[in-house]
Amino acid sequence: MHGITADKSENTDKTAKIEEIARRRGFFWMGSEIYNGLSGFYDYGHLGTLMKRKWENTWRDYFLGLDDNFFEIEPTDIMHEKVFIGSGHVKCFVDPVVKCKKCGNIERADHILEDILKENFEGLNPEALSELMKKHKIKCEKCKGLLEEVKTFNMLFPLDIGVEKPQKAYLRGETAQGVYVNFARAFEQLRKHLPMGLAIVGKAFRNEISPRNLLIRMRELTQAELQIFFDPDKINQHPNFKEVEDYKLRLFIAENRKNENIIEVSCKELKGKLPEFYIYHMAVVQKFYLDVLKIPKEFFRFRELSQEEKAFYNKYHWDVELKLSIGWKEVGGVHYRTDHDLSGHQKISKNDMSVNIDGKKILPHVLELSLGVDRNIFALLDLFYEEEGKEKRIVFRFPRHLAPCDCAVFPLVSKQGLPEKAEEVKKLLQSVKFSVFYDASGSIGRRYRRVDEIGIPAAVTIDHQTFEDGTVTVRDRDSMKQERVAINKLPEFLAEFLRGREL
Amino acid sequence: MHGITADKSENTDKTAKIEEIARRRGFFWMGSEIYNGLSGFYDYGHLGTLMKRKWENTWRDYFLGLDDNFFEIEPTDIMHEKVFIGSGHVKCFVDPVVKCKKCGNIERADHILEDILKENFEGLNPEALSELMKKHKIKCEKCKGLLEEVKTFNMLFPLDIGVEKPQKAYLRGETAQGVYVNFARAFEQLRKHLPMGLAIVGKAFRNEISPRNLLIRMRELTQAELQIFFDPDKINQHPNFKEVEDYKLRLFIAENRKNENIIEVSCKELKGKLPEFYIYHMAVVQKFYLDVLKIPKEFFRFRELSQEEKAFYNKYHWDVELKLSIGWKEVGGVHYRTDHDLSGHQKISKNDMSVNIDGKKILPHVLELSLGVDRNIFALLDLFYEEEGKEKRIVFRFPRHLAPCDCAVFPLVSKQGLPEKAEEVKKLLQSVKFSVFYDASGSIGRRYRRVDEIGIPAAVTIDHQTFEDGTVTVRDRDSMKQERVAINKLPEFLAEFLRGREL
Repeated sequence: MHGITADKSENTDKTAKIEEIARRRGFFWMGSEIYNGLSGFYDYGHLGTLMKRKWENTWRDYFLGLDDNFFEIEPTDIMHEKVFIGSGHVKCFVDPVVKCKKCGNIERADHILEDILKENFEGLNPEALSELMKKHKIKCEKCKGLLEEVKTFNMLFPLDIGVEKPQKAYLRGETAQGVYVNFARAFEQLRKHLPMGLAIVGKAFRNEISPRNLLIRMRELTQAELQIFFDPDKINQHPNFKEVEDYKLRLFIAENRKNENIIEVSCKELKGKLPEFYIYHMAVVQKFYLDVLKIPKEFFRFRELSQEEKAFYNKYHWDVELKLSIGWKEVGGVHYRTDHDLSGHQKISKNDMSVNIDGKKILPHVLELSLGVDRNIFALLDLFYEEEGKEKRIVFRFPRHLAPCDCAVFPLVSKQGLPEKAEEVKKLLQSVKFSVFYDASGSIGRRYRRVDEIGIPAAVTIDHQTFEDGTVTVRDRDSMKQERVAINKLPEFLAEFLRGREL
Repeated sequence: MHGITADKSENTDKTAKIEEIARRRGFFWMGSEIYNGLSGFYDYGHLGTLMKRKWENTWRDYFLGLDDNFFEIEPTDIMHEKVFIGSGHVKCFVDPVVKCKKCGNIERADHILEDILKENFEGLNPEALSELMKKHKIKCEKCKGLLEEVKTFNMLFPLDIGVEKPQKAYLRGETAQGVYVNFARAFEQLRKHLPMGLAIVGKAFRNEISPRNLLIRMRELTQAELQIFFDPDKINQHPNFKEVEDYKLRLFIAENRKNENIIEVSCKELKGKLPEFYIYHMAVVQKFYLDVLKIPKEFFRFRELSQEEKAFYNKYHWDVELKLSIGWKEVGGVHYRTDHDLSGHQKISKNDMSVNIDGKKILPHVLELSLGVDRNIFALLDLFYEEEGKEKRIVFRFPRHLAPCDCAVFPLVSKQGLPEKAEEVKKLLQSVKFSVFYDASGSIGRRYRRVDEIGIPAAVTIDHQTFEDGTVTVRDRDSMKQERVAINKLPEFLAEFLRGREL
């Protein structure tokens, strides 16, 4: 069965190879594939699912661990239409589109401009885009026909709920609204103090005009978002700021855009430009990427969005970008949403969203730490893919704790009791919660290559010596070095290995 | 803020109390609540989310652990319309509805009959239901007006994808189709042998006519489903059948329906009536409920569905039912779907779904083990709720490993260094992956009551003696007994306690 790649892609050699491996081995592929696919939708296979779950749990451990007053909730994907009236999405969650007068083809106006002029035009209004289209005499990409004026298209998916008098609703375009509408309820249930954090790891749905770049721009996506509610009078303080004041953030500043330079600025130095509460959380996010996800720092930057580019609800808006083979791509953001959402919901729902703390009435402001899970999974595949040596050994050098499985277990040959012994070792490792990939077919060399290709960090091989002295070999995916380890020491050895021990 | 309870409910005193606690403490409440709620949608709060995730991971450990060839995948919620043409859902995923000629009210015909005649009419066709309505002279529940003929209403939510020539798609009505359309792709990626199991833990969406009973009949729900593909020639065998042959299944048989008797029948004895492969997996499911979820066996039964009641795709269909305060309710099912789905997709997609094993061409059959996650969470709340003694101590006696948190940590008083010490103990427990509920406000008695009310199995209290001898008290939620434990022994003590050790 051939794979479907209906989505446009800024294909590089590397992304084409990754896509092929992802489909053949079981990371991801286009959804509804047997029906020629559905553009913008991707199914995760068994390896992709394991990795996605590890990533999500890593995110939870880190971000929910930041404060005792941070919690995860799970609201529904479908919400009442008024939620999105209150949030402004019904009016403002729009993409600029342009239609060809001749062939009827519809494209995102900013993307057409970007393709041709190699600049980012996200966030410009339809009038500005129309003007640019005219200035540069841009025609239809497909038939060279003349284009209409740029219009807007709302990306929310509408639904009718019930049968008698259907209630209009929407699939949420971002998880965040599930938090905001529940703020007052959760505040009552929890400690009744600020800052309070509510997180959602869940789906969002966007009817993108032109999905592209595999998991980068999808119509059904997973977000991991933390909304931190705080007292706006305290925006210029954070109790732990001291810990990060000398930590250097990697910034790509709007006014410096042309020279493409990333500058490194300590949190302390940034204090005139941004509020302390905001800077502190930029540091938190950067540390997640550099220290937890182990992204080499040259591949990480915060990108400041200009006034035009910012989302409609943000006062400060810096994207998290990673340098992939298809260029710098947004994988998350740090958004100061002010009281935009709570006051919107307050107005439309007529529910008071303010809280009372020590006699002071506060309408909290929100700092949103938002990461796109699928984009981050794709980034790991792109950043850690390597072809090595003259034989071009293909290996994903994933951080060990984020690989789809912790280790592989192989019997050297499929006879003389080796498979039974390997089965025993596998069960031992599973019993202490290691995720194990088992394979008994083909030469041992081929099996090593097969697990290198899916990034499994360690391979445990049972051979004849195992029966003599109770040891197995452990092979490191990266160095390809091997070490003999006693079976009874294996769980401890592997746990250390996953924490970073070198072979 | 008052809670919304727009959904109909067979309210008992107990469900009303559970709903109140769920909303006040943070298990669940109606979605879009500040906009007067959206019927059939429920948001999980911080406690509900913790518990749901524990339940889902418990399900994964058990069902994916059954066989080395069982894996989880994560396909999209939105799929191409042809998926649901192939599966039969566009034609058959319908509910019988009846409209009042006078007031226009629409209800499910089978539910009206059930309410009045106290019998189950699920699965009857519109003609049969119309006839029954006439025979019993049933009028509109709201205005006593005359009713129209019974019609069908499709429960799938339709969507238009894209803008130019929108592609029709649906939100999946069951997770299962995400597996079937990916069968051939996954078979190639995996070991290429049968049985092969593919699981999804994810959302399904159904435009139910009349959502009811809180988490029991929802419009957006989470399913945990395992689809086992097997060679139909081998349906009368399972390699591990010996292990269960004397295990007794609790059955409620269609032909015995009137007398309400549950019979206990050993797997061996059932062999004439059902295929061995099917019986084996019934045992697997029952053991999950009795041994893992710790449901007392009197509250569990398999209910055989009659020819009329069965889902349109099933050859054998037994529901898993639990006895709740609102009666026996379906929380899952064991479904022999034959090759219904694969041959449907084969026909519509023109992709060959058969596989070749040792030279034999096989179109696999499917055994589906399907559990509703929300219903099961609700069942735990209902089954383990207790009011105890004359003071009516409210306590959820959840199985310890399924409680929202593993333990609470309390400083006895909020002074003399106790909160700092308690903080230290909390961090110690979190560092070894216990989930901890921390509370320092109010009398210790009140704090014990607060954690009883959310079912936390153990409470660790730091008092003045802690400074003298390094011990803390551990209190058992159920027996209310207390034991002093040295802090350095605490992690081991709690781990044993969660595995069932009595205080």
